[in-house]
Amino acid sequence: MTNDEFRRYGYAVIDWIAKYLENVERYPVMSQVQPGDIRAQLPDRPPDDPEPFDQLLADVERVILPGITHWQSPNFFAYFPASSSGPSVLGDLLSSGLGIQGMLWLTSPACTELETHVLDWVAEMLGLPGKFKSDSAGGGVIQDSASSASLCALLAARERATGYETRRGGLAKHLVAYASEHAHSSIEKGMNIAGLGTDNLRKIPSDERFALRPDALQAAIEADLATGRTPCFVSAAVGTTSCGSIDPLVEIGEICRRFGLWMHVDAAMAGTAAICPEFRDIHRGLEAADSYCFNPHKWMFTNFDCDCFFVADRKALIQTLSILPEYLRNQATEAGSVIDYRDWQIPLGRRFRSLKLWFVIRSFGVRGIQERIRRHVAIAQQFAAWVVADPDFELAAPEALSLVCFRHRGGDAINQQIMDRLNQSGQLYLTHTRLCDKLTLRLAIGQTNTELRHVERAWQLIREASGSVA
Amino acid sequence: MTNDEFRRYGYAVIDWIAKYLENVERYPVMSQVQPGDIRAQLPDRPPDDPEPFDQLLADVERVILPGITHWQSPNFFAYFPASSSGPSVLGDLLSSGLGIQGMLWLTSPACTELETHVLDWVAEMLGLPGKFKSDSAGGGVIQDSASSASLCALLAARERATGYETRRGGLAKHLVAYASEHAHSSIEKGMNIAGLGTDNLRKIPSDERFALRPDALQAAIEADLATGRTPCFVSAAVGTTSCGSIDPLVEIGEICRRFGLWMHVDAAMAGTAAICPEFRDIHRGLEAADSYCFNPHKWMFTNFDCDCFFVADRKALIQTLSILPEYLRNQATEAGSVIDYRDWQIPLGRRFRSLKLWFVIRSFGVRGIQERIRRHVAIAQQFAAWVVADPDFELAAPEALSLVCFRHRGGDAINQQIMDRLNQSGQLYLTHTRLCDKLTLRLAIGQTNTELRHVERAWQLIREASGSVA
Repeated sequence: MTNDEFRRYGYAVIDWIAKYLENVERYPVMSQVQPGDIRAQLPDRPPDDPEPFDQLLADVERVILPGITHWQSPNFFAYFPASSSGPSVLGDLLSSGLGIQGMLWLTSPACTELETHVLDWVAEMLGLPGKFKSDSAGGGVIQDSASSASLCALLAARERATGYETRRGGLAKHLVAYASEHAHSSIEKGMNIAGLGTDNLRKIPSDERFALRPDALQAAIEADLATGRTPCFVSAAVGTTSCGSIDPLVEIGEICRRFGLWMHVDAAMAGTAAICPEFRDIHRGLEAADSYCFNPHKWMFTNFDCDCFFVADRKALIQTLSILPEYLRNQATEAGSVIDYRDWQIPLGRRFRSLKLWFVIRSFGVRGIQERIRRHVAIAQQFAAWVVADPDFELAAPEALSLVCFRHRGGDAINQQIMDRLNQSGQLYLTHTRLCDKLTLRLAIGQTNTELRHVERAWQLIREASGSVA
Repeated sequence: MTNDEFRRYGYAVIDWIAKYLENVERYPVMSQVQPGDIRAQLPDRPPDDPEPFDQLLADVERVILPGITHWQSPNFFAYFPASSSGPSVLGDLLSSGLGIQGMLWLTSPACTELETHVLDWVAEMLGLPGKFKSDSAGGGVIQDSASSASLCALLAARERATGYETRRGGLAKHLVAYASEHAHSSIEKGMNIAGLGTDNLRKIPSDERFALRPDALQAAIEADLATGRTPCFVSAAVGTTSCGSIDPLVEIGEICRRFGLWMHVDAAMAGTAAICPEFRDIHRGLEAADSYCFNPHKWMFTNFDCDCFFVADRKALIQTLSILPEYLRNQATEAGSVIDYRDWQIPLGRRFRSLKLWFVIRSFGVRGIQERIRRHVAIAQQFAAWVVADPDFELAAPEALSLVCFRHRGGDAINQQIMDRLNQSGQLYLTHTRLCDKLTLRLAIGQTNTELRHVERAWQLIREASGSVA
């Protein structure tokens, strides 16, 4: 592809995306294809000779698009938002075009320095404790996902608890970790990966608001200590994926301090809300945390992947993950005057991801992001009010910012029916969880362009699907 | 940003990239900035109000560009190639625009099915054993990096060796793993992450071609068995990062079979060469492997991130990594009729990465990729011939496809001087390794647009920097 062709086809792809986003509400939100439908349309063998670009783009339209579940539809209320935006897509495009590797400061100083700087911006935007900024002993880094960030935190906790010996000697001690029974599955997966074992994650019971019970946490820690185990890590959630519940950080922090445990706070979905001062109390108690993460690729209009991970003691993280082979040695690294982000993450290679985050913050402005967050929360509150006012429905959990958990009072079967009917209709997409052993519907608001009218229509459709309206 | 603005600014970014790539040879290849130079130009605080997009793009030019080390320059010969291409950048742009999550089949069936299909194409293009294709018990998946792929392989090996009990119970047994002393640092990092401990990675001595010595491997395994340890994993390299050496897969496979060890083959950089039948013998013996990975984001014209990871027994991988929380349950998954790639990787979330790989294969055609690979290898051979013919220089390792390791005969100081002078001049960028305890220069050819003239000029500059020519 020549540069002129790149221009021509590049314009065509930009046009295609613009048109896609203009029309996205017309597509069935959840893809309606059956397993194997997409593959059946693809040729068995790769082509020997080049195919024209127009053909590729036509195949995206014809073959791929029916197999897309439209996360960018304002009628997407499933799982969690993956809200993107124009500035983010274009920042990411620049990253692809530059095509650099950011594993060391030296391999593109701008990649490292912009990332450090923008993460400091983010820390300020969210009102995070000063210890997470780069002018302290801590700092921030972009990870692909909260799963990976939480794994890095767990590894650092493992090492701190064992004098940085496990990384060399392997696991001998019987380490244990703690999280609420509603914590994200990635904590359990991390226990597996880190060699700690999922059986050694204590799933702490929650209270009536589905938040971790500090008394139960303390009892579990004491029981483990009494049997010779070594508690090392607590993951507290600010906005669980299941139901948006918020663990009590102040009390958890006090327990972690007392027992010397690494406190990680996973705010993957909800953290963005702290950009609005009126929601900042979700982070009350964060001063005690050793690490924190949230995902701009969920609710801050930045396309995947972009998780912001902050640590209070960057040396603990680096000492956990650093390995420097000869072929990566260089003066800047040896002098200790720079950050080499390869030591802050699982993989070696890394993409220039701060560009898109920088573009989002500058294009929206802090106020622009705040406005969208406030709108989403207000719409969610409106939806919750409708649920409360309808005798056939009930809220299944306290309102949690932009996530509403609710159910029809008629039992699991009718809730399953509502969900299946609506998802198969393509008019909207919502998913479920189980709370108090009851099937519970989740309406996760947060797609960049979701407005009140989309949620009004969703409520109407939900009521229709339940048979509540004729 | 409205859709019309997205079109206008999107065109501007496309134009910017096209112009950047047209001019890329004019920039100093290695960024010439000092630590802190980039950050010093960035405002302390994020903007409250939106800034115009033109300003963002101007800042990329003014602030960011001087801090870029130009991996897409045809004069970039450092580390390993990160060769991109127009079709890849545009495929990735489409992925950003669609903005979907591919963690489950259901969350966008096309993401999963295209990935499975294109990985089958890739297996065929490289002539990989049939057991790595999806119509067998195995299959392929795209990972962010070979580091992550090798970690997944190591974890599966850990679990297979312990009856899939470590994931639950944590590590009790004393497991050991093996790789050549020239293996990539990611294997050591993986031992750390997986809780096995870097001390339990045996770095097996290599022969005069820097390839793992099978007799030494067997001796190490027997010594570990004799002391009650449990060997579980061997990572064999096809094209080490350090010097491009190729481990003897046939002999290693025989040893792995005899002792029941998981055999992983890491061909991150060199694997692409197998697309040319005449280079396919680099994979001789791959039939014995349990897993294999290589990086299209290194030498197959696909921008980061895109590592292709293949396993012979997908059940072993899934059984190692699978966790299914309630909120991800769905009929397609329960029926077992689909692949859910979340169980094939460390994170949960995943980007639609097969689009760019599909675009590259179709835009170049298999023959187009073969032609570039052949050109790069031929240029490397030419360069090696110049080195051999010059009495002041010597090859430091056997020719390894597109990577040439060489040195001036005058000792470490003069080689360091050559490297520093050239890198600081900005005319080209090359890095080093140590072989036989001597500083060794590496010329890694593979950037998409590198031609003979770039390498001719490099050789001239190297000779000048050494003082060999007046």
